[in-house]
Amino acid sequence: MEIKVLRNILEANDALAADNRRLLVRHGVAALNLMSSPGAGKTTLLERTLDALKAELAMAVIEGDIATRYDADRIGRHGVPVLQINTGGACHLDANMVRRALDELPVAGLDLLFIENVGNLVCPAEFALGEDAKVTVLSVTEGDDKPEKYPAMFQASSALVINKIDLLPYTDFDLAAAMRRSLELNPRLTIFPLSCTTMEGFAAWLDWVRACAKRPAMTG
Amino acid sequence: MEIKVLRNILEANDALAADNRRLLVRHGVAALNLMSSPGAGKTTLLERTLDALKAELAMAVIEGDIATRYDADRIGRHGVPVLQINTGGACHLDANMVRRALDELPVAGLDLLFIENVGNLVCPAEFALGEDAKVTVLSVTEGDDKPEKYPAMFQASSALVINKIDLLPYTDFDLAAAMRRSLELNPRLTIFPLSCTTMEGFAAWLDWVRACAKRPAMTG
Repeated sequence: MEIKVLRNILEANDALAADNRRLLVRHGVAALNLMSSPGAGKTTLLERTLDALKAELAMAVIEGDIATRYDADRIGRHGVPVLQINTGGACHLDANMVRRALDELPVAGLDLLFIENVGNLVCPAEFALGEDAKVTVLSVTEGDDKPEKYPAMFQASSALVINKIDLLPYTDFDLAAAMRRSLELNPRLTIFPLSCTTMEGFAAWLDWVRACAKRPAMTG
Repeated sequence: MEIKVLRNILEANDALAADNRRLLVRHGVAALNLMSSPGAGKTTLLERTLDALKAELAMAVIEGDIATRYDADRIGRHGVPVLQINTGGACHLDANMVRRALDELPVAGLDLLFIENVGNLVCPAEFALGEDAKVTVLSVTEGDDKPEKYPAMFQASSALVINKIDLLPYTDFDLAAAMRRSLELNPRLTIFPLSCTTMEGFAAWLDWVRACAKRPAMTG
């Protein structure tokens, strides 16, 4: 009974996500769904990415949080349109929330839409939003065992950002092991170890984002 | 309709949690439910706590993970009974999973049971397991804005461990602000800033755990 209800919810979500996807494709907008644990650095990654690319791409951001508009305020300072969704307790964004946010954004003029999901390494993986690709962000302070302990998100993603590599000297995180474990779960993952503080590794991530923006509907 | 189903699930869970609670109280066992984001350091906190207290208290651990038995293997090396629950995708423990685990543990001889929940700063807060008290673990690398962004867990907890304070010099985490925000959400929170690497602040946490073990059914 419980499982049937959950299936119905996921099916209804998939139908709405397909609607979002059609809208975005019609306007030639690529969309990336960023997912991670709380505090892995999604918002800072977005801030650095917007600053690096805003001269060449028209971008917007949908911010998903249970409460507060802190992240939208941070993004707004970078001069791109941003819409804050407060889920009011829900542990992930769903396609209906994103659909309503799209009504408020200047979709027709965009090249690239970032959707920052609620910080949660489990539930967001199951809910399609209409994105071209899912991106998981894992910070080195979380530990190199996380791919195997939270496999669904790594399996669902096209790219994995391993963030905060400037903190590697202060942790026991084994970067090679984390990459190997992630690729065992999902051989198609493109992995970007980087630091938003030192900017080491950032250029490769930017190249991937640029490629996504130039061929929407082909990266997912 | 969706909400009604969720309510039924929570009510059924609460009834099973009350059963767990009666079993633990009958045997004089205190139980602590540890919750956090993935990688905040729950398992390491437990390992240090078990080593410090195993000469004076009879303890056991229930490990909750979506997949793998890595954490149970780590705990098992410290010479206490441990039972691994794999939720197989579910993003939190529930009272029924804990009930089945209790059948496998030597409950009658215990002073203190630790339950390490699935790494998730959202969903576990809603599901009572039969514990005396909930403990949230927040690591400084996650950021000082997390209490306001994930309020339910901070509101549901009796204690907050602010972990990895040895990494404070390498982050912009404002410890005073994090403590103030947590107390605004829940003035009854007892807060322990500590490091499981340097052991700074650890003695106060141990005193609190000892007090829980000595008066089960009074700390929640």
